[in-house]
Amino acid sequence: MARVSQEHLDARRRQILDGAALCFARNGFHATSMQDVLKEADLSAGAVYRYFKGKEELIGAIVAEVLGSVRAAFEEAARQSPPPPPDELVAYVLGHTLAARESLVVDGKPAFPRLVVQVWTETLRNDELAAILREGYGSVRAAWARIVEGYQEAGLMRKDVDPDHVARTMIASVLGFIAQQSLFGPAPVDVLQQGLRALMSMRYDDAAPSGPARG
Amino acid sequence: MARVSQEHLDARRRQILDGAALCFARNGFHATSMQDVLKEADLSAGAVYRYFKGKEELIGAIVAEVLGSVRAAFEEAARQSPPPPPDELVAYVLGHTLAARESLVVDGKPAFPRLVVQVWTETLRNDELAAILREGYGSVRAAWARIVEGYQEAGLMRKDVDPDHVARTMIASVLGFIAQQSLFGPAPVDVLQQGLRALMSMRYDDAAPSGPARG
Repeated sequence: MARVSQEHLDARRRQILDGAALCFARNGFHATSMQDVLKEADLSAGAVYRYFKGKEELIGAIVAEVLGSVRAAFEEAARQSPPPPPDELVAYVLGHTLAARESLVVDGKPAFPRLVVQVWTETLRNDELAAILREGYGSVRAAWARIVEGYQEAGLMRKDVDPDHVARTMIASVLGFIAQQSLFGPAPVDVLQQGLRALMSMRYDDAAPSGPARG
Repeated sequence: MARVSQEHLDARRRQILDGAALCFARNGFHATSMQDVLKEADLSAGAVYRYFKGKEELIGAIVAEVLGSVRAAFEEAARQSPPPPPDELVAYVLGHTLAARESLVVDGKPAFPRLVVQVWTETLRNDELAAILREGYGSVRAAWARIVEGYQEAGLMRKDVDPDHVARTMIASVLGFIAQQSLFGPAPVDVLQQGLRALMSMRYDDAAPSGPARG
């Protein structure tokens, strides 16, 4: 029997995950059957089930892959001293996340934002998926909190705010930007980068003694 | 025949909308029947159909009501000179929006964030709802852009960023914060307010000549 290379196995796995992502983005997890995935990936049932037992494993793998690469990017940023500015960091990570999936298209538009919103809805009724999302989100949030601590230690950000609050806010801006794209069409990540940069430029009269000096 | 007061009509309408909101939040728009809404609102078909022709009208009315009050709040802020700081404004409007619906509970948790995510998913396959959302979102975005112009005119924010980019970013932070609540449970709006405030405090070395002076 011919030996199958790791490259071949990886490419096949990619083909299945991309096919599933397209189906889920188009119709949602609930309305997608494994038959739809086989058809989209143009593979036989045997070829697909060798890699994934079913829809649950597919959606879990897709979510884990996205969150894993996002987490790695923010953990790398957290190791820098000081970490890159938030507007640049967000644009870099989101830009890469979108670019890596730009070949996935539904109705002529990028499938990824649509997939994200479909995953959120499915999470509301799928405890297993909710657990995967919660764990991945927890890691990203922890990495972001360390980045915020880096800003605070470098005197770049006021120190009287809980780093986790800033972490949640930064992640919120990205999640909301993705939701906007799914609802109202694609927009360059530069929009979010510029928006965050403008917010960072705000003058804010505040008597709090622990905020950084301003002038 | 007894004359029915406007108060009574309004209360009945409220009862129907709240019942529908609970059903949509719990199971999504697609899986909810008018029968479910009648049961949840504890009203007869005659009583409900007098106000709303069907699910489409109900979801449209719910979305229009939320976006209408959000829009009014931001339009009022846009008339102030300078407008209130973004962190306070966001916390005020989001806090009121959540508080107005805190009696709506699904599985022991606030229904509103869950309703929002369900509406987004439904928007992906419902052109009529997408149009209502797009129009409401457009108004909120325009009001936010005027608020940003107010900051810029008052010298509170750098002037070299398109106000619409900042508007999108501010709205993104709120949408993402709502998504987080639906996925990971309730959090006080103070988290977002503090996170935005910390971002506004950032020192940012930037050679752009049109940014406000900082030192």
